[in-house]
Amino acid sequence: MERRVKSVIVQKYGGTSVEAVSNIKGIARKVALEKAGGLDLVIVVSAMGDTTDELMKLADHITTRHHKRDLDMLLSTGEQVTVALLCMALREEGVTATGLTGWQAGISTTTDHGGASILSIDPERIQRELKMGNVVVVAGFQGITGKGDISTLGRGGSDTTAAALATRLGAERCEIYTDVEGVYTSDPRYVKKAVRISSLTYEEMILMARRGAGVLHPKAIEHAMTHNVPLVVRSSMSRVGGTWIHGAPGREVSHPVYGIVFDKGRFCYTLSGVPNRMEMKVIISSHLNSLDIEYDTLMEDREDTLSFLVAEADQELADPIFDSVGAIVRRERKATVTVVVRDENTYHVTLDTVRKILQEKGQAFHIIEDCTNHVTAVVEESHAIALTSLLHSAFGLDEVQTSEAAGVF
Amino acid sequence: MERRVKSVIVQKYGGTSVEAVSNIKGIARKVALEKAGGLDLVIVVSAMGDTTDELMKLADHITTRHHKRDLDMLLSTGEQVTVALLCMALREEGVTATGLTGWQAGISTTTDHGGASILSIDPERIQRELKMGNVVVVAGFQGITGKGDISTLGRGGSDTTAAALATRLGAERCEIYTDVEGVYTSDPRYVKKAVRISSLTYEEMILMARRGAGVLHPKAIEHAMTHNVPLVVRSSMSRVGGTWIHGAPGREVSHPVYGIVFDKGRFCYTLSGVPNRMEMKVIISSHLNSLDIEYDTLMEDREDTLSFLVAEADQELADPIFDSVGAIVRRERKATVTVVVRDENTYHVTLDTVRKILQEKGQAFHIIEDCTNHVTAVVEESHAIALTSLLHSAFGLDEVQTSEAAGVF
Repeated sequence: MERRVKSVIVQKYGGTSVEAVSNIKGIARKVALEKAGGLDLVIVVSAMGDTTDELMKLADHITTRHHKRDLDMLLSTGEQVTVALLCMALREEGVTATGLTGWQAGISTTTDHGGASILSIDPERIQRELKMGNVVVVAGFQGITGKGDISTLGRGGSDTTAAALATRLGAERCEIYTDVEGVYTSDPRYVKKAVRISSLTYEEMILMARRGAGVLHPKAIEHAMTHNVPLVVRSSMSRVGGTWIHGAPGREVSHPVYGIVFDKGRFCYTLSGVPNRMEMKVIISSHLNSLDIEYDTLMEDREDTLSFLVAEADQELADPIFDSVGAIVRRERKATVTVVVRDENTYHVTLDTVRKILQEKGQAFHIIEDCTNHVTAVVEESHAIALTSLLHSAFGLDEVQTSEAAGVF
Repeated sequence: MERRVKSVIVQKYGGTSVEAVSNIKGIARKVALEKAGGLDLVIVVSAMGDTTDELMKLADHITTRHHKRDLDMLLSTGEQVTVALLCMALREEGVTATGLTGWQAGISTTTDHGGASILSIDPERIQRELKMGNVVVVAGFQGITGKGDISTLGRGGSDTTAAALATRLGAERCEIYTDVEGVYTSDPRYVKKAVRISSLTYEEMILMARRGAGVLHPKAIEHAMTHNVPLVVRSSMSRVGGTWIHGAPGREVSHPVYGIVFDKGRFCYTLSGVPNRMEMKVIISSHLNSLDIEYDTLMEDREDTLSFLVAEADQELADPIFDSVGAIVRRERKATVTVVVRDENTYHVTLDTVRKILQEKGQAFHIIEDCTNHVTAVVEESHAIALTSLLHSAFGLDEVQTSEAAGVF
């Protein structure tokens, strides 16, 4: 008999929402109420508080050259502990719960330990437990390779677990509980006038995430998008607010710009005195592609200059490529500030505005090439937050109100 | 192609030998040397130091009524952490190692969480890793149920894992590394003149273990005995010494008594004024058997008295049985002191000697019925250690020397 999977809700609790045992008890009370309300629930959890850091410290006492398979075996225990504790707490609330590790939940991944991708999910065990009326608690961030080894998914991993499970189970929605009340027009920790956005499309959210919005990982959104499962980002502390991420926003487009995000973790290679610019660009690009390094190129004023921007985490991998091309290379830590626009038609006017504002501020900057629905400026790292606030204000985002009824956002 | 399994050595490290990261590095150095010497090694490890206690504390913050499946999921992370760290440390020593959890090592168990028994082991993964020249590191104390749930083996679990693996792999021997240099004529922490025994049969060791020698769990010895795999108990700190436990000791029997062990964790039920003693004995025995509670009965002077001795851990389970029989029941914590003899023929003379010594000391005591190769006296808990020392001396064990060459022990 096929289960009515439409009633399943997947919830993910991470960050401060699983910081301590008291938080876990709080989640249990919340889940018990929702279960009593008739929902079928699959709960995905992260490791508690600083567990992962503590485990890394143990590993560092042995060696700093970590073998990734060993590290995955070590770190995956963190989520397993949270799963067990949440099941205990749920039982205290009178809810029968079954805790599952990644492999028990049928989550198969690629073999790249530490940064694996989910290949498939065998939902049999979860569905069986749901049929029996149990809440299912799943360890996020982890799975199993074809060889039977424990793998971890890397950054944003627990969100990805939740979104992939929601997709596979045909869940009604996937709720991501985090420290903030949703996705904001900018990072509310730094930009005080940032406003919560009540609704975004998958594509918009992926763009925000790729350009620095840390609230969700692009991989998680991509999983949800494949089967059109709505994602809801909200705070575990509050019943109001939240941001819906789905296929069709169904809201009036009332503002041409919906977010200003920044990303401090970038590294810029600038080659100067390059005789054949296009040829060099092709050579370096193909090298970067062969190593799976994501990059951007920058618009240049000079014909003999060429710049590549990579994630700081990829610097070690990228360095030898630039060492080998026989050009003078300047290497700098940089940040990006991105203005995300609703509509490709507004790209050019937005670009002109960004240029004008940065020039007025006497700010040295470059603009990333080949964008259509966002304008990204590469700036000094120390200026990133101030410029983000400035653009937030300049594009009129300080004045908007989150109004779900009016659909402004 | 069938592997030459005869070359496999299984080693188990527990207790203080995995107390801290520095100990784990020490094990890695030792294992690297032995691997270089041409041995194929399977290493079984316990949780580090107070990891298990720390995890229990977390669980206790949620509830003290622990669901055993949840608890197994929680506690099994302890060994997994040690496995990962030892693999890292081995790599630092230039040894390629593959760490496996219980389920990855193919260890199937019964479903009684917290006290599961190993049902079978699928050695495929371990054998494949050994063929590739890897050292295999396995999490002790754990396995997987037929339902796919993580189980733990209960007390002495890691020794059992090691012995069962050694048996299944047809290992040359199973080495148990612990805090002491082997099995002693009595517990060397309390009986200063206790002497290491260099060789014992499986049956002798099982008897010692059942009557209080904590160095090995009876289950582990039983596993080794089924396929006649020699067990070696020794200290990870020292290259000398050790105790061999095997089928045929091949040594001269030079001393009629080889050990005096005590067990403080006993609980005694004494029924007095029982009109039909034998009938009552049958009723209570069948109740205890139906609950799988191990017990001993005591020799009595009075016809209307009947005593049962159970493990303190079983007291909660046993209480209702004695509540229900309608007799006056005295309940007392007790200890046992056991004199283990080489030869059933010496039972009676040993019994007489024990009686005489205890009576001379003015000690109130009872003797357990139905023994043949040991004499067990039930005594006041507070006297157990002193009486053990006394008997150790009285039976001439203070004077013997461990002499492997001479085969005295």
